[in-house]
Amino acid sequence: MELKDYIATIEDYPQKGIVFRDISPLMADGNAYKYAVTEIAQYAQDKQIDMIVGPEARGFIIGCPVAYQLGVGFAPVRKPGKLPREVVSAEYEKEYGTDTLTMHLDAIKPGQRVLIVDDLLATGGTMKATIELVEKLGGVVAGLAFLIELDELQGRKNLGNYDYKVLMHY
Amino acid sequence: MELKDYIATIEDYPQKGIVFRDISPLMADGNAYKYAVTEIAQYAQDKQIDMIVGPEARGFIIGCPVAYQLGVGFAPVRKPGKLPREVVSAEYEKEYGTDTLTMHLDAIKPGQRVLIVDDLLATGGTMKATIELVEKLGGVVAGLAFLIELDELQGRKNLGNYDYKVLMHY
Repeated sequence: MELKDYIATIEDYPQKGIVFRDISPLMADGNAYKYAVTEIAQYAQDKQIDMIVGPEARGFIIGCPVAYQLGVGFAPVRKPGKLPREVVSAEYEKEYGTDTLTMHLDAIKPGQRVLIVDDLLATGGTMKATIELVEKLGGVVAGLAFLIELDELQGRKNLGNYDYKVLMHY
Repeated sequence: MELKDYIATIEDYPQKGIVFRDISPLMADGNAYKYAVTEIAQYAQDKQIDMIVGPEARGFIIGCPVAYQLGVGFAPVRKPGKLPREVVSAEYEKEYGTDTLTMHLDAIKPGQRVLIVDDLLATGGTMKATIELVEKLGGVVAGLAFLIELDELQGRKNLGNYDYKVLMHY
């Protein structure tokens, strides 16, 4: 299956000069969605994964069915104020200023093997902060998986030597 | 399986007097998560569902694996400014003022049978707006499914005569 057939390209979104890759046609097609999720679940199969972690909100769209397929739990990474219990936080740099991500303190048990899933690897800021959160909680980052990597942004350089899987490159 | 064993109760969140039901322990447990998703997928089994629709962000956590299990697509309902292409909008009333939800104009094809999934039925405002969006796009709302209903808020009264499924009542 050619997954790129299910990606919409939007010029100048969210701002001029940016080419946005929209995964919603992929999600809307039952076969393409199942294929993409299954590819990531197969990548994870031999990694003894205990938990899937994904940043809101598109990380949930891919990560949750991967967790379901593997029969493991899912722990969300959210913006501040969205989780009701005690959290751990990590900051990451954005174009202007910084942003913060949080996870519940009990989201990962020490030693659990974690696969982090997101839709897109761009500059890698969100993913770097997510790795930091998982490791602060004592989790072992066993792999990273993305639907799409935007190669020219070189986000990979921000992510160290973690094992990772990408389904589509642009 | 007693799903309520996996719900955390937080008093006075997000504000004094509110008892918040937190589904994150359920999501974190691979067996409980699988059980809950499978229950909803079984409910949907004989309804000839074409698409799952869920409001951000907790609706994604339940709705996406249901879509995966059924082999159908998933269409997200999002806050304004989060979807990159042309959208349809619906407003709903909150305690103070109104809020808006959006879906892509092509998210549902006319005549498609839709199951709407969310974590929680409280006053029903989010769900009512989501139903409105699906019907504006020509979709047929074949059912509604929730992990939790807060019975005393009587959200059910806002939802008309749609068929629906709830896994836990409080």
